[in-house]
This record gives sequence, C-alpha cells and structure tokens, in this order.
Amino acid sequence: MSDVSEDTKPVIVLVRPQLGENIGKAARAMLNFGLTEMRLVEPRDGWPNPAAGPAASGADIILERAQVCSSTAEAVADCAHVYATTVRKRGVTKPVLTPEEAAREIPAQPGRSAIIFGPERSGLETEDVALARAIVTVPINPDFGSLNLAQAVILLAYECSKHADLVQPTQEELLPPAPQEELEGLIAHLESLLEPRGYFRPETRREATSRTLRTVLTKPAWNHLEVRTLRGVLSALERQIKP
Amino acid sequence: MSDVSEDTKPVIVLVRPQLGENIGKAARAMLNFGLTEMRLVEPRDGWPNPAAGPAASGADIILERAQVCSSTAEAVADCAHVYATTVRKRGVTKPVLTPEEAAREIPAQPGRSAIIFGPERSGLETEDVALARAIVTVPINPDFGSLNLAQAVILLAYECSKHADLVQPTQEELLPPAPQEELEGLIAHLESLLEPRGYFRPETRREATSRTLRTVLTKPAWNHLEVRTLRGVLSALERQIKP
Repeated sequence: MSDVSEDTKPVIVLVRPQLGENIGKAARAMLNFGLTEMRLVEPRDGWPNPAAGPAASGADIILERAQVCSSTAEAVADCAHVYATTVRKRGVTKPVLTPEEAAREIPAQPGRSAIIFGPERSGLETEDVALARAIVTVPINPDFGSLNLAQAVILLAYECSKHADLVQPTQEELLPPAPQEELEGLIAHLESLLEPRGYFRPETRREATSRTLRTVLTKPAWNHLEVRTLRGVLSALERQIKP
Repeated sequence: MSDVSEDTKPVIVLVRPQLGENIGKAARAMLNFGLTEMRLVEPRDGWPNPAAGPAASGADIILERAQVCSSTAEAVADCAHVYATTVRKRGVTKPVLTPEEAAREIPAQPGRSAIIFGPERSGLETEDVALARAIVTVPINPDFGSLNLAQAVILLAYECSKHADLVQPTQEELLPPAPQEELEGLIAHLESLLEPRGYFRPETRREATSRTLRTVLTKPAWNHLEVRTLRGVLSALERQIKP
C-alpha cells in the first residue's frame, strides 16, 4: 500500500460536517482502507473537535493531518477530478457513477482526485455538486435509504482500496488434492470394512452401489492430510468397542 | 430488488453480539442493501434490546423479525452455504474469499447462504468458523485494521446487493449442499461410532481431533443424497460382520 503514489488515492472532503463523532468515524473508515488525506470544509463545531478522537479508534493521524478549508472550492483547488457523493438526484446533468466505477477511474487518470461528502442531515448543496465533474451514488434500497456519513465514506474507501495496489486477504497455502492412489487406498479400505457387513448386497446392485460410493468420496478432492485423517477414522472403526 | 427470490440473499447471523446498538446498526446496514433476514445467536444482553431500535434508524422490521438462536449451529441449520467473516487468520485451512468473491457466489449457487459475524471484541470462535465452508476476509490496511461489526455487515451487504439481481441460471441438475443440520447428523453419527472405540482419546486432544474431522467432512459440500449414502455406510459399519 505504501508503494502506491499518494496521487492515486483520493482526498476525502467532508463539507460542513456536523458531529465530531462522524468526522472521527470517517477517519477510521478511511485508514482502514489506506486513505490518509482528509479535508474539512467549515466543520460546524470548529476544529479540532474533542468528539472526533475517540470515534476514530486510533486513526488519530488522519485527524491531526486534516486540513481545514473555508470553502469547498478551496478544498478541491489542487484536484484534477472532483466527485460529489449524493443519494438523491440533484437535477444536475452530470455523469452518475457507482462507487465501483469511480474507484476504477481514480487511480487510472493523471492528477489528484477528491471525493466530497455533504453534511449529515442535508447532503451536498447544489453549488458544491457544481464543482464536481461526476456524481457518485451508492445504489441503495429504494425503499430504505439511510446511509450515514461514515458509511458512505467507508464504501467509497473500500472500493478505492480494491484498485490501489491491493492487499488481498492472505490465503494459507491450500494443499492440492491427494494423489489418486491415496484416494484409491481410502476407498479400498472402506470397501473392505463394508464387504463383510453385506453393504454391497444384493449382487445385482454391487456395481451401482460401489460407483455411488466412489462418486461421493471423489467429490471432496481431499488433500493427503485429510485422506490420512479418514484412514485413521476407518482404522478406529475396525477396532472392537472398548469396554 | 424485491423481485429477487429470498433464497439468493444471505441470512446475516450475528454470533454473541454484545451491544444492542451494534445490532441496530447492522440491521440498518442490511436494509440499506436489501437484506432482510437477521439471526442472533445468544445476544449478550438478551433480546429484544432497547438500544437496538434507535440505532436501526427505521430498519425496525429487521429487528422485529430477527430470530434468536441458542447456538451458531442452530442458526445455520437450514443453510447450504455458510461463510464465516474473520479478520485474522485462524489457522483453519478453508478457502478465503473477498466480500466480492463471496457475493458473486451466493446468488449463483442453489440453496440458502448464511454469513456469520463474531462478537465485537473477540470475533468468531474457532468452533463457529468450523461450521463454515469458506472464510470471508475484508482486505484491510495491514497497519490499521479496525473494522467494527456494523461496518463489516455493511460491506458484505453492499457487495451482495451488486449481485442480487444477477441471479445466474443455476445448473438445475446439480443438487445444493445438504442443509447444515443433515451434515450435523452425519457428523454426530460418525462420532457416536468412534467414541466407544477410543478415537477421541486422549481427552486433551479431543477438541482438536473433533475439529479436524468436522473440517474434513464440511469441505465436500455433499448434497442430501450423498449425505444419505454416507449415513447408510455408517449404519452398515455398525452391523456385526455376517458370517
């Protein structure tokens, strides 16, 4: 993540945020996904705000470095691409992108990008949206749209992180399926236990029954450790019940 | 969104959630993205919880319909696919998916899916994870991973909403994995045969041995016919050898 030029990561601009708590939560959401630059346009309760720190859950560095601006225009002055997040349509004829589409564009184009978010209650004003080249709208349940500021920030930050040099979840090395002969050994072992118990009778059904069993045991693609575990199970089943 | 069969939407299972507020926030996150079925496993402060409603911001219907379960196994009993969300590696060798990958799979496969989330502070226990076929991990900043419960829920719900209306034509001849309770029946049956033969001794190894066995048997995603075949195998193994 640190290899990626800061230019490919968007600046997050909170326009007239009301609650310090929400600013803190937005900072936490940003840092979770590797975004580090926050700008605050006229925060209602001034800045710094004592409610922001606790809500940031350790993302204090974002708050400390947050830049306070006196207008949205000032906050995006050095940005080549401005995206305005809105829930409702604002009667502005601009391209409307999903978070996914915006996140794909941002690192691919030269110059810094900013994503601007409006105040909790009212959202962005028309003049803020006017600064943007495109609108980003989270596709939300039309019957229940209740996305708060920090949630909107986290969804955008999350999408952007997919396209910044990605930190994939680390996958422990999955073992390949066991060689076929190990599987054959397992099947033969099981059949040797079943045979004397009459499982394959009547004889006319033997072939079909055997094939069904093989299909069930082939499906899992067990690795050699798993096959070994099952061999142990079969050996235990062979044992007499201990009194 | 309402046209989509409920079967293509995952059930959200909160395991031992601590704060009612977080249950409410999770409900809000769900409904924002059209998920409606919540199940609660042993909520710490009981249920209903007066702190949940205000935090749901209007998603009360989710809370009203939430089903309370006494175990994770009970909560996922009717689900064919169980995904466990974890942040840290758990030393369990199961496939690890991104939210995106899980969300793409869920509507494409026949049978219900459940996504399980652990308690706020500690996350899922190993035995909860053992019920799952796959792990979902949000790729997060390795230097600052601080995703809370509601944030994890919203990211998964958001990803699922992208794929909800893209119901893939399912290969109808493929049966879905058996519901979890049938798999539990199989595991219990096998364990009842192994127990008197000393398979789980020494006692100090019992838990790990049992978990290993469960992992091996969960991996195949056997359908109900296959589980039935294996129950028949176990019944045969119980029989005395015919002379």
